[in-house]
Amino acid sequence: MQQTLTSIPLTAIGFAKTDMPDEEIARCRRTLVSEIIIEPQYESALTGIEAYSHLIVLFWMGRTPPFENVLLHPSAEASAPRVGAFAMRRRNRPNPIGLAVVDLIQRVNNRLIVRRLDAYDQSPIIDIKPYDHYDTFTQLRVPAWSNSAPRTP
Amino acid sequence: MQQTLTSIPLTAIGFAKTDMPDEEIARCRRTLVSEIIIEPQYESALTGIEAYSHLIVLFWMGRTPPFENVLLHPSAEASAPRVGAFAMRRRNRPNPIGLAVVDLIQRVNNRLIVRRLDAYDQSPIIDIKPYDHYDTFTQLRVPAWSNSAPRTP
Repeated sequence: MQQTLTSIPLTAIGFAKTDMPDEEIARCRRTLVSEIIIEPQYESALTGIEAYSHLIVLFWMGRTPPFENVLLHPSAEASAPRVGAFAMRRRNRPNPIGLAVVDLIQRVNNRLIVRRLDAYDQSPIIDIKPYDHYDTFTQLRVPAWSNSAPRTP
Repeated sequence: MQQTLTSIPLTAIGFAKTDMPDEEIARCRRTLVSEIIIEPQYESALTGIEAYSHLIVLFWMGRTPPFENVLLHPSAEASAPRVGAFAMRRRNRPNPIGLAVVDLIQRVNNRLIVRRLDAYDQSPIIDIKPYDHYDTFTQLRVPAWSNSAPRTP
């Protein structure tokens, strides 16, 4: 039942723009301000987006090596269990689509100024969706190795 | 600078399974329990996923008509402003990729039993990412027409 969706090409609706080198982006992400440049023919599809404070951005992680289906220690600690690609947020995935929840700082015509986008410079943008209350879940269970904690408002 | 990513085919890592008819899914979504059947060669990539209570599921909305770049009233109310595709969560988008945050109820080998997936039956699954605290944002601004409200725990 393996299906390869070759008949459905993805279209870049725009691209990411940042001066930050690829290898610095993960570390600087929380404060990183980037631009999303939307192709002119899709500018009108941004109409009304300014009403949202947060957006979900899907982007193509083209500079990722081909998928290796291996189990890895998800954090730097070798004591963490080895887990699979779908239990991690690392870039090496069967379909290298990145997902970032970003702050929309400003829209200027076909350009969105955003904070917290971890797309590399020139990454193709695939979709932008408004982040709404129904995307917010606060009662989470996550593994100990994730080292994340509930955000303090 | 328009790029069409035809050289990068998407792969279905699995598919959604539900008895619910397409036209009922949006309405029933909050309580809907569906299955995600992962292709056997990706089963090992699920290792460790049970440690998460919530997952982000990306799926291909193949039964969506070709994208129409029009402004629409996003809610049933004609008094709501007309907005573009990137300011809405409707299915008609340049790249029809659906995104759902689901509860992971149970994993049984290559099957995930999940709640709140709004993929139609047999929709190709493209990616599964764990939902972690850094995806939770509680201080949101959303437009009045969205009719959504902060979730009460």
